[in-house]
Amino acid sequence: MLKIGFLGPKGTFSQEALLEYKKGEKDFVECAFNTFGEIINAVNKDEIDEGIVPIENSLEGAVNATLDTLATDVDLLIKAEIAIEVKQNLLVRKGTNIENIKYIISHPQPIGQCRNYLETNFNHAEIRFLYSTAEAARQVAECDFNMAAIGSLTAAKVYGLDVIAEGIQDSKNNYTRFVVVSKTAAEKAKNNKTSIVFSTEDKPGSLYRILDIFNLWDINMTRIESRPAKDKLGNYIFFVDLKGHIEDDDVRDALTMVKRKTSFYKFLGSYPEFVIK
Amino acid sequence: MLKIGFLGPKGTFSQEALLEYKKGEKDFVECAFNTFGEIINAVNKDEIDEGIVPIENSLEGAVNATLDTLATDVDLLIKAEIAIEVKQNLLVRKGTNIENIKYIISHPQPIGQCRNYLETNFNHAEIRFLYSTAEAARQVAECDFNMAAIGSLTAAKVYGLDVIAEGIQDSKNNYTRFVVVSKTAAEKAKNNKTSIVFSTEDKPGSLYRILDIFNLWDINMTRIESRPAKDKLGNYIFFVDLKGHIEDDDVRDALTMVKRKTSFYKFLGSYPEFVIK
Repeated sequence: MLKIGFLGPKGTFSQEALLEYKKGEKDFVECAFNTFGEIINAVNKDEIDEGIVPIENSLEGAVNATLDTLATDVDLLIKAEIAIEVKQNLLVRKGTNIENIKYIISHPQPIGQCRNYLETNFNHAEIRFLYSTAEAARQVAECDFNMAAIGSLTAAKVYGLDVIAEGIQDSKNNYTRFVVVSKTAAEKAKNNKTSIVFSTEDKPGSLYRILDIFNLWDINMTRIESRPAKDKLGNYIFFVDLKGHIEDDDVRDALTMVKRKTSFYKFLGSYPEFVIK
Repeated sequence: MLKIGFLGPKGTFSQEALLEYKKGEKDFVECAFNTFGEIINAVNKDEIDEGIVPIENSLEGAVNATLDTLATDVDLLIKAEIAIEVKQNLLVRKGTNIENIKYIISHPQPIGQCRNYLETNFNHAEIRFLYSTAEAARQVAECDFNMAAIGSLTAAKVYGLDVIAEGIQDSKNNYTRFVVVSKTAAEKAKNNKTSIVFSTEDKPGSLYRILDIFNLWDINMTRIESRPAKDKLGNYIFFVDLKGHIEDDDVRDALTMVKRKTSFYKFLGSYPEFVIK
């Protein structure tokens, strides 16, 4: 049976994404992990077959740890993407007075998604970061009535918490895109995307010359994300998503040229494009 | 007297950057703030003349809150940049046993800079995020011998803490670049940089066409950073740094064209280039 890793405990947005990915299917086992890094490493060591990790949020941007791990620490392929709508809520233990809240706990991403709400309503509360929103909910369920968690309605239900504010993220358009990583490639679908990561030579115009290749072959780049190369301030690696499959002639030829013109290049996979309904 | 805001309390890397910025000068007052957002807002409301905020780290990447605030919430100019080397250290109260450390507290950026160290050495400790490294040191000085802070040697000195591990960041090349924001522009120096932020139309090749403008005018782009536009997953705004001053003919003409070809455009300032020794 296929083993798929997700960020536990039950009730996280990761689990929600996993259920969307495997909608209508039953031939898999959900394996809960404590951190996204542990999930990726478990796939890398063949302890599980696939892992689902967040890569981007529409408010808070790139998930740095996921990008950095995929670029340098492991050799895995992205075989699917899933985007889910994320509604953040303020969860407290039954009986908590809103004026008594001294600590707000959650994963760094939801804290970032609710930055304006927190600055407006809780600018004197201490923010504590945990590895998961569900873990935050679990801790609030055991606290001294002075703590609130930011998390999903599912997490509130699982841990018997009161929801004192719903939809507190800074915009209605709050989506998180997850990717499924694996050692096996996805089957080619009708509409596909391809992800690569590369670094350019340290000279003027080098990024432009790579984008010029995409332009020549009429490749549609849907995303570019820069991350520090970590060797020197001002050196970067670039994550690029583009439309098409590595087996399409244009994509294959363009990426062959990109590989030739970059100092570091890694293919991160071709996978079916996910369309938000 | 010139009032300059920095992230307090004393002993933060922000204060170190401020002293580097004003090296040899005495005609200013240091004003400590609790968050970077408060600093930027204080400049915006004319409560202080200038504010120093981090914008990029060589390991952890962009400082999202700074970029987002400069792009959308205020109309301020960058008038200087300063890069300082950042060495993170593990600080404890005298008498703390390393095996008893249950909590590690710091600002999210240093936590990110020490990600590998923490996963290797403290994967069972709970990470708590505070608004400043110096505040973390202050809290450790009052704790029950079960906490460690990540912060500077200066912070250790100020709060009388023991340094049990030095230079724990994940790479020797750990630099943070700060910018000084103000309502007044910098004087033109010998070597300058210019920062802009823009969003492109939502169609294939639109970013390429902007970089094409830089290429036409021989403008050297030193950095491109994408952030979510926050309206829809997959829409981005781009922060670009380039060499040259807005009063240089080429830069002025190229940026006039960029402004014409973008759906949103904002000039963030021309300022002297800082060179790391």
